[in-house]
Amino acid sequence: MTADQKFSSLLLENAVTELSRLPGIGRKTALRLALHLLRREPREASALGHAIIDMREGIRYCRVCHNISQDDVCPICASAVRDTHTVCVVENVKDVMSIENTGEYRGLYHVLGGLISPIDGVGPDVLEIASLVERIAAGGINEVILALSATMEGDTTNFYIYRRLGQFPSLRVTQLARGVSVGNEIEYTDEITLGRSLLNRTPFSDSFAG
Amino acid sequence: MTADQKFSSLLLENAVTELSRLPGIGRKTALRLALHLLRREPREASALGHAIIDMREGIRYCRVCHNISQDDVCPICASAVRDTHTVCVVENVKDVMSIENTGEYRGLYHVLGGLISPIDGVGPDVLEIASLVERIAAGGINEVILALSATMEGDTTNFYIYRRLGQFPSLRVTQLARGVSVGNEIEYTDEITLGRSLLNRTPFSDSFAG
Repeated sequence: MTADQKFSSLLLENAVTELSRLPGIGRKTALRLALHLLRREPREASALGHAIIDMREGIRYCRVCHNISQDDVCPICASAVRDTHTVCVVENVKDVMSIENTGEYRGLYHVLGGLISPIDGVGPDVLEIASLVERIAAGGINEVILALSATMEGDTTNFYIYRRLGQFPSLRVTQLARGVSVGNEIEYTDEITLGRSLLNRTPFSDSFAG
Repeated sequence: MTADQKFSSLLLENAVTELSRLPGIGRKTALRLALHLLRREPREASALGHAIIDMREGIRYCRVCHNISQDDVCPICASAVRDTHTVCVVENVKDVMSIENTGEYRGLYHVLGGLISPIDGVGPDVLEIASLVERIAAGGINEVILALSATMEGDTTNFYIYRRLGQFPSLRVTQLARGVSVGNEIEYTDEITLGRSLLNRTPFSDSFAG
């Protein structure tokens, strides 16, 4: 089968074309998915179609933290029980989910929408950095946790934000601890991580203090 | 991220659950697809959703050949220009598309809906074999081309149909030519194919006769 495959039905061709717009799904996979849906109960295809439409229509971005939300302000920002003095800066909405799933964080978030990457043409202006500075200027935030990926782009963005936040002398700016991941063997840990973990070694008693 | 990932929105969770019902798409991929749709224009998600719903509602199976169709009888069976004396027996609707795309066939089809496979519990009764026999009993068909996969299941099904069609002495039953595929090197062709290709060798002059 080739890309200019002729279909026996326009409805099928339409579904295949739309499915193949999804990332990582080519026309062959799209055809397989469409034929799968044709073999199943009609309500299964209907549930999928409506779930996609309802999601796109119902979800917008939180005005405060830019996380996905069904309202103007997301449930985390609107919550009465979260620690409003701490803001965790993350790259995208998936990272919010990952951190929420640890169950270790009770503060708020700020979703940048990407990382600074000159090679990809992503400068600080297209990210939600100005709105972060505004949030802090508005007062009430004591600590900003930089929770960005340990990559070159993450480090660049970390440093840029750290510089921008220099205007708030009383603000505490922290970043995620870096070191050997749980379950990793020393033998297979990269040299930079291992070197930094040696330099930033912590008292052993800390590991059972909490 | 784990399978019991908590989502910040029920609409997102719903879309991820429905997307992950598709074959070969796990929850992680489903989340990636959903977040992709959230980043795109709303009309893109709407087009995808409606294409899926419309396809499932609009497509049924042809009463005659069991190919997919938007009407009671598919365009191939209903066509006035196709050769109605020849029926090509295929496993599924994808095979119809593949043969149509060769542009070499002008006859009709008969879609079995699978191959006989005792291991998977697929017997001749769940396939459209009885309806094939009925079509031929109704008259007007001179040749049946067995175009099934060159696998054990394909061979079993070929042989079963061949036996069932023995009741029509004037019917010509043929199968696809088997041999070295175009572009394949002899060195890498499997022994059985190569052996059969030797036994069933054809006059060289035939290759430029057509």
